[in-house]
Amino acid sequence: MNNYEYCVPTDIRFGKDQVECLSKEIGKYGKRVLMVYGGGSIKRTGIYDKIYEVLKDYEIYELPGIEPNPKLASVKEGTKICKDNNIDVVLAVGGGSCIDASKHIAAAAYYDGDPWDLVMDKTKVTEALPVFTVLTICATGSEMNPGAVISNEETKEKLELNHPLLYPKLSVCDPTYLYTLPGKQTAAGTADIISHIFEQYFQPNDGAYITDRLSEAALKTCFKYGPIAMTEPENYEARSNLMWTSSIALNHLFTFGKGGAWSVHPIEHELSAFYDITHGIGLAILTPAWMRYVLNSNTVARFAMYARNVWDIVAEDDYEAANAGIDRTEQFFIKLGLPTRLSELGIDDSQFELMASEAVRTSGLSTRAYVKLDVGDVTQIYRDCL
Amino acid sequence: MNNYEYCVPTDIRFGKDQVECLSKEIGKYGKRVLMVYGGGSIKRTGIYDKIYEVLKDYEIYELPGIEPNPKLASVKEGTKICKDNNIDVVLAVGGGSCIDASKHIAAAAYYDGDPWDLVMDKTKVTEALPVFTVLTICATGSEMNPGAVISNEETKEKLELNHPLLYPKLSVCDPTYLYTLPGKQTAAGTADIISHIFEQYFQPNDGAYITDRLSEAALKTCFKYGPIAMTEPENYEARSNLMWTSSIALNHLFTFGKGGAWSVHPIEHELSAFYDITHGIGLAILTPAWMRYVLNSNTVARFAMYARNVWDIVAEDDYEAANAGIDRTEQFFIKLGLPTRLSELGIDDSQFELMASEAVRTSGLSTRAYVKLDVGDVTQIYRDCL
Repeated sequence: MNNYEYCVPTDIRFGKDQVECLSKEIGKYGKRVLMVYGGGSIKRTGIYDKIYEVLKDYEIYELPGIEPNPKLASVKEGTKICKDNNIDVVLAVGGGSCIDASKHIAAAAYYDGDPWDLVMDKTKVTEALPVFTVLTICATGSEMNPGAVISNEETKEKLELNHPLLYPKLSVCDPTYLYTLPGKQTAAGTADIISHIFEQYFQPNDGAYITDRLSEAALKTCFKYGPIAMTEPENYEARSNLMWTSSIALNHLFTFGKGGAWSVHPIEHELSAFYDITHGIGLAILTPAWMRYVLNSNTVARFAMYARNVWDIVAEDDYEAANAGIDRTEQFFIKLGLPTRLSELGIDDSQFELMASEAVRTSGLSTRAYVKLDVGDVTQIYRDCL
Repeated sequence: MNNYEYCVPTDIRFGKDQVECLSKEIGKYGKRVLMVYGGGSIKRTGIYDKIYEVLKDYEIYELPGIEPNPKLASVKEGTKICKDNNIDVVLAVGGGSCIDASKHIAAAAYYDGDPWDLVMDKTKVTEALPVFTVLTICATGSEMNPGAVISNEETKEKLELNHPLLYPKLSVCDPTYLYTLPGKQTAAGTADIISHIFEQYFQPNDGAYITDRLSEAALKTCFKYGPIAMTEPENYEARSNLMWTSSIALNHLFTFGKGGAWSVHPIEHELSAFYDITHGIGLAILTPAWMRYVLNSNTVARFAMYARNVWDIVAEDDYEAANAGIDRTEQFFIKLGLPTRLSELGIDDSQFELMASEAVRTSGLSTRAYVKLDVGDVTQIYRDCL
């Protein structure tokens, strides 16, 4: 088991009506709140009005219109609001995009230059406004971790800002807020959760047995409840299990004592950056292709372990088990109604080499991934998804 | 899944040589340190000297001699040292007893009356000195939670002080520090970890699927590595898996979305309070007896689930599976070399009714336990262990 530092100070308020706590908890930091949200679905569902009711004694500023892959321009806009109005707290109401933008804004509020500088050099993050979140999509785990993925539309880069100061102070996770999610977002979110667990599970493991078993517990939970949430959107048990699994899937619990760079996420990030597709959909398309590409004599034991422990595959031969597990994974994404080919999204092979080059350049794919991949490998994985 | 609040701000520094971080981290709070430790084993193992080396720029006061079931008298002594010397940080070096005493001291340092008042009324805890820990026994999980169990030798009470201010700021968890543990302590500690998971697992579960699966992952880890740590004390993989599992076994992860009062712990606490036996040994004796006593048509499905998911028991009949799982649990404790009968410890039935009465009076056994138990039930469980 590798040495590891683990500290997750976020206060999770999980369950029905937890939003009520905000009136007391935000008050510990001040009265001037920047509310960051997306396309307006929170107005249709009543969450927007509920927050105004709970925060009736507060002065609320708004940054609406955060995009699915949050853009630097939004961060700049939010940062200006914070500086102009002495904002005390940034309140993200939405999914990972709103939370990620809020974190970046919270740090940029204390920085005088271009907020993108913080992404390029996180030592420039010296202080941050407290971030609160009200989660309306479960997928990224951003509500319980210090990461923020931001897209720079000028440079076509999609990169992560990660700093301990950016853990949300408090996250309201009310599973009933997921009831009105469109099926496509439920499916893509579930694929994202699963991919986060895979990225940590499919790594060398020098004896961190507990971490692998915890990861398998979370994977089983996603595979059990993803389809239920699709067919019964108001199934509290399904929504609540997915919501909590989503949070712990990316708060480092499943990488404790392990390490290594991620694989499918950087390959997908280029798809999102070039074609602005939904992150979870890109992951669902790429994951089975990546699994098949990296299956070899070094990795087969772990893929077979996954198949046996998560899918209860009974097969003596490791390759047989591994391939069955990969097939089940792919079938699961199909069952969620997710596309399986890039061509279904209108993506052709014209940018594959450029995207592969960017993916390798901006990540640990070729240096620290489970199976090291160069530009040629990544290009081939894109091709395998056509 | 029940509503739940989850916030564990402790900074875990896990792995070899992590003790080095103390020179920097303690300095954030001050230079005057009260070091709380036990019977002197840290002097034999070199940990004591190591801490003096790491904290060479600090002013260290000492409270040695903390007992296995820490006594109120020790807390009073430590509190006096803190008040007399303006201590900035309480550093526990040891296991749960040292950490629990340190937490109580940390709170009592800000309280003018008898420290026992804080146990009886935790609203009297208003502030606490920062607690740091260096773990040398893994068992109680105290290094990552806000609880402290203290024995009042005058009233023969053993009760818990639990307050959010008492989370350790930082815990050094170096698995190599467990290498020199006597086998008896390794065995008793493992029994304690397992019992913590059981107390949370054997509860009604209204849909917290993920929580049950995570608990089973941790149980499997204990059952795999407990015997290895006994026969190979310097097996890093075994020690590290048990150490991390011990921490997460009692930081509320395994009770997320569930609830209910504990059963075997309050029954055991009276054994420790009356006879000063090792807590983990008492738990190992009582657990199989408690399981058999509460196995009924309401609980059999959960015991069968435990047997199948943790022990891979193949049996169609739920009672058959459940009983096989209980037998395997008992055999496991025997394999660790733990006593299985109270009579082996020289305990007779003379105090059973009084202890049972105290156990019921000071806990939720008769009101909120998995299977509600009255004084007669608890007396019978003690008798079943003779």
